[in-house]
Amino acid sequence: MSADHAPRRAALRASLASEGISALLVTDLLNIRYLTGFTGSNAALLVDARDSVDAENGTVICTDGRYLTQVAEQVPDLKAVIDRASARHLVESAEVPDLGFESHVVTVAQHTVWSEVAPQRPLVATSGLVEQLRMVKDEHEIGLLRSACAAADAALAALVEEGGLRPGLTERRVGRRLESLMFDHGADGIAFETIVACGANSAVPHHRPTDAVLASGDFVKLDFGAQVAGYHSDMTRTFVLDRVSDWQRDVYDLVARSQAAGRAALEPGAEVASVDAAARRVIEDAGYGELFLHGLGHGVGLEIHEAPGIGKLGTGTLLCGAAVTVEPGVYFSGRGGVRIEDTLVVREQGPELLTLTTKDLTVV
Amino acid sequence: MSADHAPRRAALRASLASEGISALLVTDLLNIRYLTGFTGSNAALLVDARDSVDAENGTVICTDGRYLTQVAEQVPDLKAVIDRASARHLVESAEVPDLGFESHVVTVAQHTVWSEVAPQRPLVATSGLVEQLRMVKDEHEIGLLRSACAAADAALAALVEEGGLRPGLTERRVGRRLESLMFDHGADGIAFETIVACGANSAVPHHRPTDAVLASGDFVKLDFGAQVAGYHSDMTRTFVLDRVSDWQRDVYDLVARSQAAGRAALEPGAEVASVDAAARRVIEDAGYGELFLHGLGHGVGLEIHEAPGIGKLGTGTLLCGAAVTVEPGVYFSGRGGVRIEDTLVVREQGPELLTLTTKDLTVV
Repeated sequence: MSADHAPRRAALRASLASEGISALLVTDLLNIRYLTGFTGSNAALLVDARDSVDAENGTVICTDGRYLTQVAEQVPDLKAVIDRASARHLVESAEVPDLGFESHVVTVAQHTVWSEVAPQRPLVATSGLVEQLRMVKDEHEIGLLRSACAAADAALAALVEEGGLRPGLTERRVGRRLESLMFDHGADGIAFETIVACGANSAVPHHRPTDAVLASGDFVKLDFGAQVAGYHSDMTRTFVLDRVSDWQRDVYDLVARSQAAGRAALEPGAEVASVDAAARRVIEDAGYGELFLHGLGHGVGLEIHEAPGIGKLGTGTLLCGAAVTVEPGVYFSGRGGVRIEDTLVVREQGPELLTLTTKDLTVV
Repeated sequence: MSADHAPRRAALRASLASEGISALLVTDLLNIRYLTGFTGSNAALLVDARDSVDAENGTVICTDGRYLTQVAEQVPDLKAVIDRASARHLVESAEVPDLGFESHVVTVAQHTVWSEVAPQRPLVATSGLVEQLRMVKDEHEIGLLRSACAAADAALAALVEEGGLRPGLTERRVGRRLESLMFDHGADGIAFETIVACGANSAVPHHRPTDAVLASGDFVKLDFGAQVAGYHSDMTRTFVLDRVSDWQRDVYDLVARSQAAGRAALEPGAEVASVDAAARRVIEDAGYGELFLHGLGHGVGLEIHEAPGIGKLGTGTLLCGAAVTVEPGVYFSGRGGVRIEDTLVVREQGPELLTLTTKDLTVV
């Protein structure tokens, strides 16, 4: 199944129409990738709101000579222009009465140049129009997220299988091996720097791997993900090495119950703050609310962190087709912590779990 | 030797004084790292031009609660404030008559918010003030670049030693192994996605590794680098597998002579366009000018590509202490290509070579 970008551009045109803007100059490269499939490092895209899906005559992508072949292959359905100063070229050449731009992306310096290039045409600030569309994934995107999650699942299974989580290894070595295994299992990139945190380090939510050595009785927290065709997976699992003590079992059970409550709250139309609350309440009721140091989750897609944020102070509701993480944690400073995280898709019939590795307490 | 950031801030204050600005709000994270040593993912820095090295009372760094400990450890010499909306907080609280900002970094949306937060205080657009300072590396920075280059040299030597460049391997496998070896030899990151290009692929300047299989008689072009403490190395070497043909020897020799001419032209005060010309002339004189598809080189430091650019249309001169690459290439489309690249430091007594792997034609 290949991606169909024309419907995404059509959806953007509907947004532009409702904002009363004739065209949008898209300069965020991920937004351009989403709308066209183009993956080069220099591009600008003009989406003309007056076009239709069948006749995209005013819509044009601009890139530089390095990408002459690539743009023709990746974007066969749009007019392509070659000019090194891509955005500026489109500002100059666009035949539209007014031009929207991405105010959260465009720098003051760029805006100044564009204003001088076409002083007669109003530049209209917009914010997050494409990101808003990107929140709801189509089935092609969900397929890529599923592949990315499968690569992470398979890599973790292989790591455990080969004895790659055992006393005596360093966090750094475990992290590098896990990353290598993701490539072996279909990833074409890693989603972010892998977190491996053992013993007391597991109490640091975003610990970076060090030369600390895994020891018997440690928690080992792994937070990692794969990329497939630009889409990111995100999963955290916390293991115990060799033998588990009572306090570890208790905190693990608590976080697992919180995470299950968070997943159960993922319904189309749910307020994001209420989803956070559903998971947080479990931990608060146990008296550890202050040890849950971060928000519950975030959207995931072409970026590892994207809309919607799922936290205490979050606003807005979950849309059907949103891909999000659910990742509560409890952290005992100096002692150890547990986080359990899945990537899921919000669906009418209940959330679809994409990260399939067991969440039962696993002693390795 | 640890980095000394105070002199860098003092140099910035001199720039601000000559621009007539009271203070600069620095929001580019690499610029903040350069000026303070802070490596977190959220920060803003106010550099008060009226401070002195001995009394930096008006200069303050702001970050969020996640980095409470880290900012105290990494930036012991400045006042630190904790606020999630770092830049906005400093705009609000700064007691300065006017405030410079980085117009090439700050978005239109941020600028709009800042204008509303403190409408009475002029915001003054600046461009590249810190980047200008970053062009000239101090000895601490050169030490880190040297370490990054050494990791890359050692990794390549180990790859060749273990027979890691041989017919039957895929580009992808070679790239992953080379990256892994850089970590083994002291890298704490890779500088950019490793380029491995065999056979006809070597004619594509920025080919990404594929499942193409290395074959006897192929050129194999490796363009790669390591990171050490945020500093990047950049090196390209082109090998021949098993046996070398006459045309390969000829093109290799041509590129090597061009590269030597480029290195020899690296003098303090040299126009960057004339450095490019010195190398390009060798290739043009051989009748292959049109096959040298890119500029000669670029600055390297906290970014893999930074000022100065060394190309045909480049402006400005080389400063003593600039770290740059010299990387001519000749590419026969459909057949193969050669690029040879070093990272060097411009010095009064002649350029210091940081990438030490031999440039003699090597048949593996």
